[in-house]
Amino acid sequence: MENQITTEITNNLFTINNLWMMIATALVFIMHLGFATLETGLTQSKNTLNILFKNSIIPAIGLLTYAIIGFSLMYPGESFAGGVFGFAGFGIGTDAAGLTSSYNIGYTYWTDFLFQGMFAATAATIVSGAVAERIKLSSFLIFATIFVALAYPITGMWKWGGGFLDTLGFYDFAGSTLVHSVGGWGALTGVLFLGPRAGKFVKGKIHPIPGHSIPLAVIGVFLLWLGWFGFNGGSVLSADPGLVSLVFVTTSLAASAGAIGAMATSWTFLKNPDLTMTLNGILAGLVGITAGADLMSPADAIAIGFIAGVIVVFSVIFFDKVKLDDPVGALSVHLVCGIFGTLAVGIWGEKAGLDQLWHQFIGVISVAAFIVPFTAIIWFILKKSIGLRVSAEEEYSGLDIGEHSMEAYPEFEKVS
Amino acid sequence: MENQITTEITNNLFTINNLWMMIATALVFIMHLGFATLETGLTQSKNTLNILFKNSIIPAIGLLTYAIIGFSLMYPGESFAGGVFGFAGFGIGTDAAGLTSSYNIGYTYWTDFLFQGMFAATAATIVSGAVAERIKLSSFLIFATIFVALAYPITGMWKWGGGFLDTLGFYDFAGSTLVHSVGGWGALTGVLFLGPRAGKFVKGKIHPIPGHSIPLAVIGVFLLWLGWFGFNGGSVLSADPGLVSLVFVTTSLAASAGAIGAMATSWTFLKNPDLTMTLNGILAGLVGITAGADLMSPADAIAIGFIAGVIVVFSVIFFDKVKLDDPVGALSVHLVCGIFGTLAVGIWGEKAGLDQLWHQFIGVISVAAFIVPFTAIIWFILKKSIGLRVSAEEEYSGLDIGEHSMEAYPEFEKVS
Amino acid sequence: MENQITTEITNNLFTINNLWMMIATALVFIMHLGFATLETGLTQSKNTLNILFKNSIIPAIGLLTYAIIGFSLMYPGESFAGGVFGFAGFGIGTDAAGLTSSYNIGYTYWTDFLFQGMFAATAATIVSGAVAERIKLSSFLIFATIFVALAYPITGMWKWGGGFLDTLGFYDFAGSTLVHSVGGWGALTGVLFLGPRAGKFVKGKIHPIPGHSIPLAVIGVFLLWLGWFGFNGGSVLSADPGLVSLVFVTTSLAASAGAIGAMATSWTFLKNPDLTMTLNGILAGLVGITAGADLMSPADAIAIGFIAGVIVVFSVIFFDKVKLDDPVGALSVHLVCGIFGTLAVGIWGEKAGLDQLWHQFIGVISVAAFIVPFTAIIWFILKKSIGLRVSAEEEYSGLDIGEHSMEAYPEFEKVS
Repeated sequence: MENQITTEITNNLFTINNLWMMIATALVFIMHLGFATLETGLTQSKNTLNILFKNSIIPAIGLLTYAIIGFSLMYPGESFAGGVFGFAGFGIGTDAAGLTSSYNIGYTYWTDFLFQGMFAATAATIVSGAVAERIKLSSFLIFATIFVALAYPITGMWKWGGGFLDTLGFYDFAGSTLVHSVGGWGALTGVLFLGPRAGKFVKGKIHPIPGHSIPLAVIGVFLLWLGWFGFNGGSVLSADPGLVSLVFVTTSLAASAGAIGAMATSWTFLKNPDLTMTLNGILAGLVGITAGADLMSPADAIAIGFIAGVIVVFSVIFFDKVKLDDPVGALSVHLVCGIFGTLAVGIWGEKAGLDQLWHQFIGVISVAAFIVPFTAIIWFILKKSIGLRVSAEEEYSGLDIGEHSMEAYPEFEKVS
Repeated sequence: MENQITTEITNNLFTINNLWMMIATALVFIMHLGFATLETGLTQSKNTLNILFKNSIIPAIGLLTYAIIGFSLMYPGESFAGGVFGFAGFGIGTDAAGLTSSYNIGYTYWTDFLFQGMFAATAATIVSGAVAERIKLSSFLIFATIFVALAYPITGMWKWGGGFLDTLGFYDFAGSTLVHSVGGWGALTGVLFLGPRAGKFVKGKIHPIPGHSIPLAVIGVFLLWLGWFGFNGGSVLSADPGLVSLVFVTTSLAASAGAIGAMATSWTFLKNPDLTMTLNGILAGLVGITAGADLMSPADAIAIGFIAGVIVVFSVIFFDKVKLDDPVGALSVHLVCGIFGTLAVGIWGEKAGLDQLWHQFIGVISVAAFIVPFTAIIWFILKKSIGLRVSAEEEYSGLDIGEHSMEAYPEFEKVS
Repeated sequence: MENQITTEITNNLFTINNLWMMIATALVFIMHLGFATLETGLTQSKNTLNILFKNSIIPAIGLLTYAIIGFSLMYPGESFAGGVFGFAGFGIGTDAAGLTSSYNIGYTYWTDFLFQGMFAATAATIVSGAVAERIKLSSFLIFATIFVALAYPITGMWKWGGGFLDTLGFYDFAGSTLVHSVGGWGALTGVLFLGPRAGKFVKGKIHPIPGHSIPLAVIGVFLLWLGWFGFNGGSVLSADPGLVSLVFVTTSLAASAGAIGAMATSWTFLKNPDLTMTLNGILAGLVGITAGADLMSPADAIAIGFIAGVIVVFSVIFFDKVKLDDPVGALSVHLVCGIFGTLAVGIWGEKAGLDQLWHQFIGVISVAAFIVPFTAIIWFILKKSIGLRVSAEEEYSGLDIGEHSMEAYPEFEKVS
């Protein structure tokens, strides 16, 4: 009788934990809509349908490739090659054990797969923003497929799958490095291979190309913040009351401080309370806290978020200065603040210390050392084969007509 | 003491199950916003306010009629007439037992009512898309009220209320037939009675009428996918970890495969990576998996979703060929893929077999045999009394001005 | 052994309750996006970026000030001055007890802080709608900061922090008074100090200034209804199955009846099925049920919602008549229906009675007696120092250019 009671108590806890992980999965899913509307809002209306096409198909590609190969590359179990590569075989599937607490005290095999799969696709979405308004649809789709199927799970395994970075002591709670800077490095090589949009840098001058719909951008940022409750809160991997609620608080305070940091910086240095900077400040705070959201006090979270909000403004200016054209600020938000957030684990919070800072640095460098050449090779092959960039005429008239023969807003008159 | 412990354990499980069902209710609620933005995006801006009016008032009508009559028509308990009709009396209300696990191990009476009520209203929303841009507001509101109050709960009872289709062995997990094809048949009769929009079919040629806002359409599809986690996941009727998480996986993989299926089909046969087809492919996959989301393996779900995505493209082309004008593709998504998904239960998964396929076929036919004449009679009476269709002048200038004396976007210049 | 079992059962329940409270927190968070899109949709496109700036920064200001001062003003514990003021010291922080059920049977300290903090910021958002399209950005930000940091938590403490209104028997389940009319009174004084928008009232005539995007307004109302599941449902402060599900039902039925009430009223008296009135009817029903959502039967909820829906239409007409210019109807929805909902606790439901009605009346008056002069003083000081209102030229050309040097829709041609 006592055994049965204990089993039932354990089962109840398993059901609670699994419920939270499924809801977290749904929240991470909605981040894809957040990315879609954010990228669309910050770009020109002649490329809107094209951007939305990519953002709509990425979750599909992400989940299917993750089912076929990604999940078992990322969590290979025992089948390791020195902690840098492992593979547990094609496809997913489970027996009854995967559906009970014998699999895991936090969630079922199915929940595990779907939660991780939703993460995977976000890495490709980050790239899509940076290369928008000039990349060929077919090239992007091929890149995204390889990137999500191989690059993301291989580096993800290094820490979350028990690989060499995990052994080393590297810490990345929810993916400042494993998700955001992975996406960011892929975005950087993409921007380098593609070159800037026509008209962005003319005769040494920077010409801002404003986004066509600020409401869409704001909808995107709010949905991303909402989704981050699942992204960070779900990374606790259980419904542990103290830990998940702490993560909710640090995540929200970092986002808030990021908004204030970016607003203050843009108002002071650009003499303008700049909304797109403030929105990027929110995202900067979120990316910044992600690596250590479970380790920080509220004051730490505010410090990290605020600094990330300041950094993102100067970073956007910097990339413009060095003529790297990133229409939505993805490099600044995901790469720069992803690195900052990873290092922040060594500076603030429970694990702060020079040793940890060194581990964090090694993690950042290791991931870069793989993703940069890996993605560069893909971009290079695509460029030499089917080509990376649409024609100048297509870029001028818009990728919606050029790639899809349709317009996003066929009824509205444009400013000529 | 032991009894008390067992009671507390049972109560805890009840609280968990009920929590999930309430969250699922909120997710199904947000599908109404998904339908609203999808329909709006795929239609012309001169009818936007009218469409949004209908979509905003439908949940209100749905919940109120479900409280007054629908819930007790759909779940009549013992008061049956041969499994085809039952009624437990007007209104809702409960005593203390309805709020504890003595009512149901999964959820309270209130949760039961609200979850089912949110489903009810979706059936009317499906119709609203197909008849958009030409139907009189008053006629639609009368139709929608009768449809949700009577047609949906009566056929719903046949399976979910323990009626004759349930006895027969018909299976419909979350409503490929009971929700989607019910709405689809009502949409079909509506389209037949209304006729096509002016300008859609001229001298034997099909003139596409593009939607005015692709971002709204994309927002709609993502919100529908999100809501489907509650629609299908909630149909488990408890937070059972293995079953709910399997349903999340099959639902998401079917949606993903539907996107790929529709993209591939449109790219191959229409020579165009068509976004609205791809979006409808996602919905096709979701509708297709709905009848058997708890019975399928991941591979089954991918097969069903992919085929639904292929079907939806050819179905849209077919309805255009036979001059049935459906502005948003509701017939293809909800009726055709609803039937396909229902039959799929006999072809793939745990229940696959010729017997089951026959039961599924009987279910499809039975529902059609009731909904088609029932809705035809309502449309007929409305047509002969207050009229179904707005005047040609009103259709030309738009239903926003005609029915509401307001515009959806009064400030923006239109392409003339 | 038995003790350990009992502890584990209690811990499980704590984990469930805390999970619901965290999800409710996320739902209240998304209300900020609802307010943002609603306000944007109902105003002119030349002020869109400015409105979205305010709505994006308010949650940040709200959470940070709540962390620094608001939370400990609102829940001061023992440190009272006669039930009208208390303060538990600057900052937040907790020891281990705050993370277990020893803090509270419903949730952790962190969850408590974040749920309450999300509420706090909504009060400022209510004001932002009423003063839109003419207020200086800097003045509004200063007002909002003081309002959320001081005014909201001080009056909130009177009831929810165990202050004198609580002792008196005043009841306000989720804040018809403590949130909505607090915001509403601040909005009223703001409207009085600012005066109407140029062109709204000319030579004794009322000139409607239509909103620029009905889809954004509809998105806003649906997100607010969704968020209200957390706002009201979370105010149960646990996942109690019977109570939370009742609150879901009363909340949804009141919203539905509000929609019908406002539709019927506008159709009958204004000869027009007015969508913005219907949307405000939904919100009116939601605000109206908020004070007693846990006390009402379904029939009570329908009555309260319907009456609120009728009231809101006449209230909007009234404020126009008396030349108080409120671009989004915030006074009618939040102030008038907030008061109605508070009084409704004395008229319908479990606590109905003259005594209770009197307590409710005292609560309404007490809050007004503090908020009106408090906010009037802030507005007065701002008016005399940095000024409240933008210049006539800036108002004419729009606050987007005037305050932010950017446009929300730079690519679309405007009707001239």
